[in-house]
Amino acid sequence: MQSINKPTLLIDRLKVEANIRRMLGKARGAGAVLRPHFKTHQSLEVGRWFREAGVDRIAVSSVSMARQFASDGWKDILIAFPVNLREMDEINRLASTTRLGLTVSAPGVMPLLTKALRAPADLWLKIDVGTHRTGFDPNDPDAIRLALGQAEENPLITPTGLLVHAGHTYQAGSPGEILKIHKESMGLLNGLKASLADVFSRAQVSWGDTPSCSLSDHFYGADELRPGNFVYYDLMQYQKGACLLDDIAVAVAAPVVALHQSRREMVVYAGAVHLSKEQGRDALGNVHYGQVVILDGSGHWSFPEEPVFVNRISQEHGVIRLPETLLQQFSPGDLAGILPVHSCLTADLLRGDTRLI
Amino acid sequence: MQSINKPTLLIDRLKVEANIRRMLGKARGAGAVLRPHFKTHQSLEVGRWFREAGVDRIAVSSVSMARQFASDGWKDILIAFPVNLREMDEINRLASTTRLGLTVSAPGVMPLLTKALRAPADLWLKIDVGTHRTGFDPNDPDAIRLALGQAEENPLITPTGLLVHAGHTYQAGSPGEILKIHKESMGLLNGLKASLADVFSRAQVSWGDTPSCSLSDHFYGADELRPGNFVYYDLMQYQKGACLLDDIAVAVAAPVVALHQSRREMVVYAGAVHLSKEQGRDALGNVHYGQVVILDGSGHWSFPEEPVFVNRISQEHGVIRLPETLLQQFSPGDLAGILPVHSCLTADLLRGDTRLI
Repeated sequence: MQSINKPTLLIDRLKVEANIRRMLGKARGAGAVLRPHFKTHQSLEVGRWFREAGVDRIAVSSVSMARQFASDGWKDILIAFPVNLREMDEINRLASTTRLGLTVSAPGVMPLLTKALRAPADLWLKIDVGTHRTGFDPNDPDAIRLALGQAEENPLITPTGLLVHAGHTYQAGSPGEILKIHKESMGLLNGLKASLADVFSRAQVSWGDTPSCSLSDHFYGADELRPGNFVYYDLMQYQKGACLLDDIAVAVAAPVVALHQSRREMVVYAGAVHLSKEQGRDALGNVHYGQVVILDGSGHWSFPEEPVFVNRISQEHGVIRLPETLLQQFSPGDLAGILPVHSCLTADLLRGDTRLI
Repeated sequence: MQSINKPTLLIDRLKVEANIRRMLGKARGAGAVLRPHFKTHQSLEVGRWFREAGVDRIAVSSVSMARQFASDGWKDILIAFPVNLREMDEINRLASTTRLGLTVSAPGVMPLLTKALRAPADLWLKIDVGTHRTGFDPNDPDAIRLALGQAEENPLITPTGLLVHAGHTYQAGSPGEILKIHKESMGLLNGLKASLADVFSRAQVSWGDTPSCSLSDHFYGADELRPGNFVYYDLMQYQKGACLLDDIAVAVAAPVVALHQSRREMVVYAGAVHLSKEQGRDALGNVHYGQVVILDGSGHWSFPEEPVFVNRISQEHGVIRLPETLLQQFSPGDLAGILPVHSCLTADLLRGDTRLI
């Protein structure tokens, strides 16, 4: 810890491994395979911990990430993001050496993809079960049949499955509501799968999103679970009831650069370019950008008696209001710990500055 | 443009140079020197355009940035961020080869700095004129006198000036309010400077923040202007009245990956890890994450007839609702343009992916 001199992502390996183990056990218990989404950590090293735990297939959200993990020996990679036709050269290169899954999420894309694909790839059709970000409408099977028909024009394409990300669980007000969305969405999906049986009999179902995968023990026939955030969790997941505070496996170590006794505030070197501007809410509904933890000499953390938050941030500054007794414990040059609101964004920003603890 | 295949920051050189020229003219007209803050662009190339325009001193907000620009030949660099005592080794190295300015913003820091500094440095005291992020209270000159006295214990420290960032102009409701804050703050500062004349007679005043530097033509005796964002501007500055939409010099080129006709939405490859989660507001008060522009073959942009925004984002997805006629103009694989809400954060995220136009 002595050598940490700027905002750094502390990664608690034991917590990560426990999070991986629990999700693996859950997938196995449901008869599904875990295909973890690596967009959260984007780390070759954390990827290897998954491999050591027995994982052999992964999801990513960009061609760049697919290349990164392919270079570290991953052989079954699903790009769970609508195929970017501008990257077909790279996609064709990757597909020729790795089992590559591509996602088509809207009408009009398939004819362009069939023309451009020059190496074998698995085709996953993204189904919109209610998030309305992207995906085929499950109530419009004709559009899906059309896409499957178009896919036949290129024999390199293997229709493989239906891909779902029930992202609207993030808007749910309670764990019960998340479970309800989860069950209804899987019902919708299984109905769709049955109605497509004549043209897509071997369709696999790949189910994503950390809240439902964490909260549910039932997966209603899903073949794959594809959560990502669970590897680290964060305050947003904690607020959804998807994890315990103790499950959060990353914290930002932030140098203390100023103390303002008169207003009981501390300024740390950790701002929007380190934490991201993702907003959390404290119990009173006030916006915050992370929860403060106390770091020990080895980088492990504990919680102050009452919760303390990063109240304001600018590009590099974080401003923390804290109780008198706690303020007295800090001096300029110390490190404070900050649990991220959204670990995917924080980990992306601090990719070059991590420390295993 | 044909070769752009993922989210890329388009930098319009002519607009950047015009923005630089206007701010330089304004500084000269006020008898002040422009010390542009390079945290916005963090680009050696854009830095060189400043140098070609006659700029020879800069501000940065981290030791890492200071090192980056020192390596490109900059010889007068002010780190306009509270000195991070954990980086003293690097600071001492830099200070031994470059004219380096360090910022002290709170009581208690100076004794630690005087002990740790081993090479000559300029000392800037940060004054809090109302932002309450950090800085000495201008109504408590004793604390400032104490810090100046402590600085004398290390002859390598040269007290140089008072540093101000009137960041509360960003909370102002109107251009008039920004000018009022600006005038009052400079009044407060000049009062402080006069009251310190016996111990700090040659104190320079370095004045920051793009809104006031853009809107005001009066700088009330400031020696330096230190705005940063003006090099690119953005929607936030436009909303403050600090620039015209046409002054915004950067846009994100975003590949179109899905079109959903039924709800008139388009999905682009450009999300929180490219745009940042900084929120803007449209005329109706709805949150957005950027304004859509139409790119031509050379990467220059124009505005659709009615304003269109990025309505939702996740890690890599941006979702854009747009009028039927405009939706018809896009196909999967095209590029859409997005003006950023906050160009400092977007430029930081896309540091590795830029294109000059």
